[in-house]
Amino acid sequence: MCPSKVADGDERGWIVPIGGAEEKEDDPAILKRFVRLCGGSDADIVVIPTASRMEDTGARYERIFEEIGVKRAKALNFATREDGSTPRWLERIERASGVFFTGGDQLRLSTILGGTPAAKMIRVRNAAGMTVGGTSAGASILSEHMIAFGSEGSSPRADSVRLAPGLGLTNRFIIDQHFRQRDRLGRLVAALAFNPFSVGIGLDEDTAAFISPDNVLEVEGSGAVTVVDADAAEFSSMAQADENEPVCLIGLKVHFLIHGATFDLKTRKASAGALAKG
Amino acid sequence: MCPSKVADGDERGWIVPIGGAEEKEDDPAILKRFVRLCGGSDADIVVIPTASRMEDTGARYERIFEEIGVKRAKALNFATREDGSTPRWLERIERASGVFFTGGDQLRLSTILGGTPAAKMIRVRNAAGMTVGGTSAGASILSEHMIAFGSEGSSPRADSVRLAPGLGLTNRFIIDQHFRQRDRLGRLVAALAFNPFSVGIGLDEDTAAFISPDNVLEVEGSGAVTVVDADAAEFSSMAQADENEPVCLIGLKVHFLIHGATFDLKTRKASAGALAKG
Repeated sequence: MCPSKVADGDERGWIVPIGGAEEKEDDPAILKRFVRLCGGSDADIVVIPTASRMEDTGARYERIFEEIGVKRAKALNFATREDGSTPRWLERIERASGVFFTGGDQLRLSTILGGTPAAKMIRVRNAAGMTVGGTSAGASILSEHMIAFGSEGSSPRADSVRLAPGLGLTNRFIIDQHFRQRDRLGRLVAALAFNPFSVGIGLDEDTAAFISPDNVLEVEGSGAVTVVDADAAEFSSMAQADENEPVCLIGLKVHFLIHGATFDLKTRKASAGALAKG
Repeated sequence: MCPSKVADGDERGWIVPIGGAEEKEDDPAILKRFVRLCGGSDADIVVIPTASRMEDTGARYERIFEEIGVKRAKALNFATREDGSTPRWLERIERASGVFFTGGDQLRLSTILGGTPAAKMIRVRNAAGMTVGGTSAGASILSEHMIAFGSEGSSPRADSVRLAPGLGLTNRFIIDQHFRQRDRLGRLVAALAFNPFSVGIGLDEDTAAFISPDNVLEVEGSGAVTVVDADAAEFSSMAQADENEPVCLIGLKVHFLIHGATFDLKTRKASAGALAKG
């Protein structure tokens, strides 16, 4: 499944993966910026709390977005695959200026929403300009290849990670979240070791990658974004490694980016942005 | 303090940092290889258990080396700075074919041995061909710039690491150990962020870097060696970052190496070695 085609004259919408545990009360910088991209006080945001098993997750984000100041925030809690065909919910997504996926378990998102008319609608609408974001599990789901689960550790092992198809808004990168807090570099690198074509994006908590329509990522929030570029990788031993064996991977480029720094997913160039000016 | 000069016609000895918790009983591959470099059955090894606070550490390694089969293994437990001038201990080091530092606290090694005649003797003897190895704290002490202590986490923060001068056998790299097990990439990268001239070597437990006289590192053991090459780093925000703030570091090269893979510290080229033919 390739990302939906952007029509001539159209521009893809922003894609906003967040590393989880984003600030929600005092200074919700990430969520505020997400709202601005959705139209600010005109924003009409659909919250999808399907990943979460907690009943109040949808209502909580409705309230957070309302406090930031949007025209409308409405949670659609897809609980079954059948829900993914509900006409009035599809209409809501069609009219929305933004979709936000909450945290929880990304396999709930992929198993319940994957391939449904709702998933297709989100893909088509993002290709036509609608902003799509998500936090934690809701960040993982956004890309074509999704980390479903894995194990901790800074270096890759053959069984560090299990991949599954995600929502497929982009295939330029693979996302991981709670990155520093849960010691996840090894599993992100293992995902790249299977096929080094992609870029790995490791998002710390309270940290987001704002990915523009022309695929420049900018960091927002209090932590770091670890960018692992496997494009120039010279060797991966993944095909030879037994379960739980360490994997040899040669020639990765790694950037640790903080607030304001950027990474261009087309040219694969990182920039410190305003930081470099001191 | 620069590494001791290697005299014309001489070759520096091997330097063998080990990531801690090396296999000691069933198949002590790392320690056996260390013994071979010290002369095998002719090996005369001085064990320095100064880093450890446990009384039997020296005797334990004497026994391990004797079981592997050496001519002599003798622990010299330097407990005070005065001990570092004891003439018969200096003579023992002068005659030894190898020196092995045990684990413990690397600040005990640097504070007790640093600058003493014993430390100088080890530096001079390594420059003249004697093998020097160490595990855990004993690995950290080997290089010029030593990680004294630091905090966990995969990405660097301004206060992730404290450096101290080490034994200074080489200034080509900075070592960290228990690497995967204790989530130490961030502190190693922080060490490089201060001054990116060096190469960071992160050693997993039961994993060693055998560094030849001509500065080619080869991996031995069951884990991985994470090599972080900061030579081409384009930007470091370390000078601007406040305590506990994340650090921006752009343009690192990272290799995950396993048994048999190599890294040439002169050309900064990694190779999968025999793995690539597999």
